[in-house]
Amino acid sequence: MTVSVESERFSTDVAIVGAGPVGLFAVFECGMLGMSCRVVDALEDIGGQCSALYPEKPIYDIPGLPETAAGNLIASLEKQIQPFAPHIHLNQQVTGLTGKAGNFTLTTSAGTEIAAKVVIIAAGVGAFGPKRPPLAGIRDYEAQGPGLGVKYMVRTVKDFAGKRVVIAGGGDSAVDWAVQLSGVADKVYVVHRRDRFRAMDETVKRMHLLADDGTIELVTPYQLHRLDGAGGKLEAVIVADLDGAERRIEADVLLPFFGLAQSLGPILNWGLGAGAGGIPANPTTAETSVPGVYAIGDVSDYPGKLKLILTGFSEAAFAAHHAYATVFPDKALHFEYSTTKGIPSGK
Amino acid sequence: MTVSVESERFSTDVAIVGAGPVGLFAVFECGMLGMSCRVVDALEDIGGQCSALYPEKPIYDIPGLPETAAGNLIASLEKQIQPFAPHIHLNQQVTGLTGKAGNFTLTTSAGTEIAAKVVIIAAGVGAFGPKRPPLAGIRDYEAQGPGLGVKYMVRTVKDFAGKRVVIAGGGDSAVDWAVQLSGVADKVYVVHRRDRFRAMDETVKRMHLLADDGTIELVTPYQLHRLDGAGGKLEAVIVADLDGAERRIEADVLLPFFGLAQSLGPILNWGLGAGAGGIPANPTTAETSVPGVYAIGDVSDYPGKLKLILTGFSEAAFAAHHAYATVFPDKALHFEYSTTKGIPSGK
Repeated sequence: MTVSVESERFSTDVAIVGAGPVGLFAVFECGMLGMSCRVVDALEDIGGQCSALYPEKPIYDIPGLPETAAGNLIASLEKQIQPFAPHIHLNQQVTGLTGKAGNFTLTTSAGTEIAAKVVIIAAGVGAFGPKRPPLAGIRDYEAQGPGLGVKYMVRTVKDFAGKRVVIAGGGDSAVDWAVQLSGVADKVYVVHRRDRFRAMDETVKRMHLLADDGTIELVTPYQLHRLDGAGGKLEAVIVADLDGAERRIEADVLLPFFGLAQSLGPILNWGLGAGAGGIPANPTTAETSVPGVYAIGDVSDYPGKLKLILTGFSEAAFAAHHAYATVFPDKALHFEYSTTKGIPSGK
Repeated sequence: MTVSVESERFSTDVAIVGAGPVGLFAVFECGMLGMSCRVVDALEDIGGQCSALYPEKPIYDIPGLPETAAGNLIASLEKQIQPFAPHIHLNQQVTGLTGKAGNFTLTTSAGTEIAAKVVIIAAGVGAFGPKRPPLAGIRDYEAQGPGLGVKYMVRTVKDFAGKRVVIAGGGDSAVDWAVQLSGVADKVYVVHRRDRFRAMDETVKRMHLLADDGTIELVTPYQLHRLDGAGGKLEAVIVADLDGAERRIEADVLLPFFGLAQSLGPILNWGLGAGAGGIPANPTTAETSVPGVYAIGDVSDYPGKLKLILTGFSEAAFAAHHAYATVFPDKALHFEYSTTKGIPSGK
């Protein structure tokens, strides 16, 4: 598997949107039919939710795997597609799709351009990222330098050295980072709309001890209310209690930890008729209303659809077999079983 | 797993025809929705072709199992359905199906009667058995006692002690049994339409050595032509060469080894419109033209059908979810993921 993050133009038979279990297995099904693949994913690693949200959760309903941790399923799929040497473009969301069957161009937020004969969308519930609190002008403060403005994750603790940090939220991320950043920050405020925190007991206890010291200040029950600043530079976070009484906290950085949101994002604008259930697709070809564009896994929708990883795997097989005629217009598909012909490295 | 061979009447939610990989996984999908299952299979063991024809062949295209021997896939599926304690009725072919959705009765060649609310047919290419050579009156000689008449397999070598045995065929079975039975039989004839045999070199060599000794007589190139006997007792096998010249071989037993034939048998008479491709079924419910009767796996047919084990697994999920309303007419199906609710023994 080759992982790319460059901004470049590439060419492939099949562009796959989403490196979750179903997108990965699409690489296998396409590979078995001799089609090359490039996969794009918004996350930092392959596996989609299986890797990012519940790698240790056991899954029981993958046929032939009586019990497997989600992360292990991804590891097995990675091994299974190894013979087809797929290229995975991580850390970038798809943005545009132009062209038509046989000649599509897929672009990503990293500036990558992928020319592909067909496109398979295995985007699940969409790219998921942090939930942005509904504060006016919040995006203006997202582009500031390290340790400044609005940030949704802590990449490097030392960026926060000497800073006035406002953390918002009451879960594990809020509590963990409050404790950790209190070691380097000038002051850490934790804004939460309740007095109780939903995090590991041990860590909540440590946070309260640090609050007793004055290293951390718990601002509860308060909610984020407004941001104050000028020229894109955050100056203060204004919070309000349940009666609407405001309090101003002078701050260099706001870290909102409100969990993850999912969105199909730009895919919604690709003319595929995506609705609440996903992208309408033919259940036995996986083709969408746009010839050469396929939807498989949780993102696809048809009457009777079951949102199981298993059915997504099956849809990957349907998509690959149907796409064959577009990828190889001059070849007839000779159906062969894997038991008969083996796989590239296992012949 | 309980294995039954009794002739009795049973009652269950779901009767499954076929204990191949797809029929077994249907037990899992039904079990996850709280439906009990009984499975019928013509073979002596579960696993269908995976167990009977190619247990050691590697399969590469089961998602999450980069390479697995067919027999191991069956062992994994057996483990996976263990929590649902299915009852498997082996060694019996299904014969009749009467009744309607909510109240079917399935009967088998062993006299078993299974009352079921729905029926899932996962019969693959049908029950498979030895190919019968097209000789007039051959069935008359099939019912003779051990080591006599026409037999399609050797269960007990000593049954053939002192007998005059005609083996027909040129493959592994013919050559292997010629060598083995030559140790006990009075005389072994091997009838084959070519001089060359398609079997393990080593065994062919041993057969030729035994032929040099006169223990075995190779009758080539000859074909089976006619059987001679009286009152159901085989007396001679008449063979003919390519010019039609006949030769009479006095014999107690004929063992034709011409491979396996598959047939859906009585299922063809169940009014399901079975054609060359199988039984027409809805791709997203797996329901056939008869409400409450489902077809999944290789036996099912719809436009775009892929005969992969994987798609059969997915069809098992569709069938179970659709069958739910018939099995539990008063319950609403609350869809839950296995990661959320676990399985009966793994909660």
